[in-house]
Amino acid sequence: MADIGTLLSEIVGVEHVLAGDAISEDYAHDEALSRDPVKPAYVVRPETAEQVARILKAASDQGVSVTARGSGSGLSGASVPLANGVLISFERMNAILEIDTENHVAVVQPGVTLQELDAKTAEHGLVYTVYPGELSASLGGNVGTNAGGMRAVKYGVTRHNVLGLEAALPTGELIRTGGKYVKASTGYDLTQLIIGSEGTLALVTEAVLKLHPRLPHQGTVLAPFTDLDEVARAVPKVVGSGLGPLIVEYIDGLTMGAITYSSQLKLGIPADVRDTSHAYLVVMLENRTQDRLGEDIEELGELLGGLGAKDVYVLDGPSARKLIDAREKAFFTAKAAGADDIIDTVIPRASLPEFMARTREIAQENNTFVIGCGHAGDGNVHLAVLQKDPEVRARVLRALFEAGIGLGGAISGEHGIGRKHVQSFVELTDPTTVDLMRRIKTAFDPAGILNPGVLF
Amino acid sequence: MADIGTLLSEIVGVEHVLAGDAISEDYAHDEALSRDPVKPAYVVRPETAEQVARILKAASDQGVSVTARGSGSGLSGASVPLANGVLISFERMNAILEIDTENHVAVVQPGVTLQELDAKTAEHGLVYTVYPGELSASLGGNVGTNAGGMRAVKYGVTRHNVLGLEAALPTGELIRTGGKYVKASTGYDLTQLIIGSEGTLALVTEAVLKLHPRLPHQGTVLAPFTDLDEVARAVPKVVGSGLGPLIVEYIDGLTMGAITYSSQLKLGIPADVRDTSHAYLVVMLENRTQDRLGEDIEELGELLGGLGAKDVYVLDGPSARKLIDAREKAFFTAKAAGADDIIDTVIPRASLPEFMARTREIAQENNTFVIGCGHAGDGNVHLAVLQKDPEVRARVLRALFEAGIGLGGAISGEHGIGRKHVQSFVELTDPTTVDLMRRIKTAFDPAGILNPGVLF
Ligand SMILES: Cc1cc2nc3c(=O)[nH]c(=O)nc-3n(C[C@H](O)[C@H](O)[C@H](O)COP(=O)(O)OP(=O)(O)OC[C@H]3O[C@@H](n4cnc5c(N)ncnc54)[C@H](O)[C@@H]3O)c2cc1C
Ligand SMILES: Cc1cc2nc3c(=O)[nH]c(=O)nc-3n(C[C@H](O)[C@H](O)[C@H](O)COP(=O)(O)OP(=O)(O)OC[C@H]3O[C@@H](n4cnc5c(N)ncnc54)[C@H](O)[C@@H]3O)c2cc1C
Repeated sequence: MADIGTLLSEIVGVEHVLAGDAISEDYAHDEALSRDPVKPAYVVRPETAEQVARILKAASDQGVSVTARGSGSGLSGASVPLANGVLISFERMNAILEIDTENHVAVVQPGVTLQELDAKTAEHGLVYTVYPGELSASLGGNVGTNAGGMRAVKYGVTRHNVLGLEAALPTGELIRTGGKYVKASTGYDLTQLIIGSEGTLALVTEAVLKLHPRLPHQGTVLAPFTDLDEVARAVPKVVGSGLGPLIVEYIDGLTMGAITYSSQLKLGIPADVRDTSHAYLVVMLENRTQDRLGEDIEELGELLGGLGAKDVYVLDGPSARKLIDAREKAFFTAKAAGADDIIDTVIPRASLPEFMARTREIAQENNTFVIGCGHAGDGNVHLAVLQKDPEVRARVLRALFEAGIGLGGAISGEHGIGRKHVQSFVELTDPTTVDLMRRIKTAFDPAGILNPGVLF
Repeated sequence: MADIGTLLSEIVGVEHVLAGDAISEDYAHDEALSRDPVKPAYVVRPETAEQVARILKAASDQGVSVTARGSGSGLSGASVPLANGVLISFERMNAILEIDTENHVAVVQPGVTLQELDAKTAEHGLVYTVYPGELSASLGGNVGTNAGGMRAVKYGVTRHNVLGLEAALPTGELIRTGGKYVKASTGYDLTQLIIGSEGTLALVTEAVLKLHPRLPHQGTVLAPFTDLDEVARAVPKVVGSGLGPLIVEYIDGLTMGAITYSSQLKLGIPADVRDTSHAYLVVMLENRTQDRLGEDIEELGELLGGLGAKDVYVLDGPSARKLIDAREKAFFTAKAAGADDIIDTVIPRASLPEFMARTREIAQENNTFVIGCGHAGDGNVHLAVLQKDPEVRARVLRALFEAGIGLGGAISGEHGIGRKHVQSFVELTDPTTVDLMRRIKTAFDPAGILNPGVLF
């Protein structure tokens, strides 16, 4: 039996296979907190879809595990390899193959980053509307995690914006799913099955993405509220207003303090308002015309006032950008502040007050500090958990997941299960469903080489 | 081994099991053309999800086939049972369980019709935005076919509007997928896998549907063009305009003639325009305010004029409703005109001119009459094929599918493969993909009881 390292070199060329000390620390981790780094036996950097398929075939034949890595910005440890496994890095497959302005689609290789794609689509007055907080993330990784982000409340998540894929199966074949059309009823939807599967079913070698016209005018409103319950009660009204908000984020008082402090952001909120506001709502609107945007912002302001906002601040362009930016970087702020874990439970948005109340109880019971912000319009709560003791922390996480599931939600809205939450996922999900998912996994990956230890 | 009829009676009560002559003709067909009706051995009408699960378990144990039926309005023969099989009719599971105005979701049983749901959501100022042409269709059937319809260009198809399911597995368990939230990254998306699977993977016993605010103002524009190529070239510009059209339909001259004639519709188009117009575009806009709608309609008119429309007619409410209604009934008009088949190939929308050119060639080569209309904004072309000779007709259909697939499209945009297009589906799809789908089928349905002969 040939050595896997030799086989990899034959497939991609020896200069694109790394082993031992040639493997940098970067490949050993993603952005998940409190996880030990793991270096794989080999890092391989394919250039073509065919190479990816051949690598998978070789790995299946040899029973060697394979983990896909985009930009390694994931928060669940899903792109962290096994020590005796192969890590496929898609860094060389980073071409934007096409911006099709007639069909409004982009065709990209998986290593393209959101930032690169955004710059390119902007040239054509188009936009790929999935905007997770980290624009260095790759499209392949986005497909892997079903990435979401702030704009999901208007445009949906990755799942709603990927029209088709080329993917390499663990058995060594390439398949194409979907295409440059928004709908089909022609067999099972393999595109959707692969999206969000965290590199456990097939590896994406090309993606067809839906683009939208880039609306030129955006406006942002910041509204302080007495507490999170009030914010939570306002959210359905804002989403249901017909104003079609682009962003509906909540930020709790502590997180707001931390992110404004760390990004030196002055929002001009008087001290008395700030001191009595324990939660904020940030709503962004967009429009084709400045006039309509202005009208809508005014209407939104009135709506928020009626819903208990203590004041309504219409942010100018630079302040708005800074605030959104700081919100996106909230993860790093939390990390710098010593957060030991970040979770992103999703619940029906109307259950936000109940979930937050339960969160406070769980935090208190366990002497743990829990703060957060989140995609309120989607019921997706991002919580930073500060608790050094791993056992207590595990208990807190588990209790939070149970609370979310108890309210009809799920463990993760967009970050994924990865390696971090496997036990909770398997134990808190109905066994029939887990068994079914395992059988689907086997249908794709009979040798079980793709990302073992992730999800199951 | 107990007789399946006895088992069914034990599960649902003898009065809800029909056999022999008690089975009406209705249960023997859907709306697919040129298909012979087939009466099943038993029709069973369960009342609860548990009963559905028990029926499936019994059928799996006995190796008896099971076909699900909603309203039987499908166009691909997918709800037509096998002669020795069981037909589950969901007519008694027809309750709207909840309209949740905070989370903007409806929870329904599968037998609820679109019409019933629309009436109910209207009371709350909300709307379920999936509007296929036949409002007697059931939500279970809509999930089965991934139903689309005219409004998909703005709001997506069933796939984009179903948030969660309760479903009975062929192995006899009930599972719940998704929930009252728009996104999750927590294991494989079983909701999406079941949607569009035409009753071959699991049977839906409850669905959680996404609702939107019901915008009060709608306006419709009808634009005649010289030919279909011009219409096709206009479509991407209309979709990309930022006007966010609710409907972008094309209707060819003959079909327009037929539907206006059969519904006694007077649109006030002067004879000279009508005689030189071989294709029409119908665009509907909606808005929160009448003013904005008016402005947008005006802008749309100018846009269409610049794109070669011979004139632009803004239809008043009743005329617009009548035209849309007539368009929705185009199927029945085609049927009355002697159509022998209807297909709904989907292609990248910019390929519409090429596809239509190829359609004309195929029709001519085979002495066949092919006319149509379609969801132009989605590249979904509905063609009525008039050709009595089944062999020639099969050749025409196959050539049309090949043409669509050759342009990067798929056999069906929304009607499904069903029993009608199985051979084309299996032969024109890459064998690796078909094999993978078969393995997925087996993962759900090891005994192969669910709708055998559909898809594969
Ligand atoms: C500051 C910060 C903010 C963030 N904000 C958000 C947010 O708002 N919303 C959100 O959803 N996420 C957010 N994230 C998480 C992260 O950016 C996303 O999960 C992103 O999708 C990861 O992309 P990546 O390229 O870094 O993937 P990686 O971390 O490299 O991999 C993620 C997963 O995808 C798989 N994968 C990678 N490439 C492929 C491929 N070609 N084929 C198949 N599977 C593949 C991997 O195996 C792994 O399972 C944030 C992260 C940070 C650090
Ligand atoms: C005039 C006319 C216009 C139409 N216009 C459109 C259109 O614009 N867009 C469009 O998409 N379709 C259209 N259709 C087709 C049809 O309305 C849709 O396919 C609809 O989804 C069928 O719903 P049904 O309840 O009649 O399903 P059925 O015909 O009863 O069944 C359809 C499929 O769903 C399965 N099924 C039924 N119930 C369940 C369940 N509970 N669980 C799992 N599977 C189930 C069946 O087994 C079958 O495979 C039109 C049909 C007509 C007659």
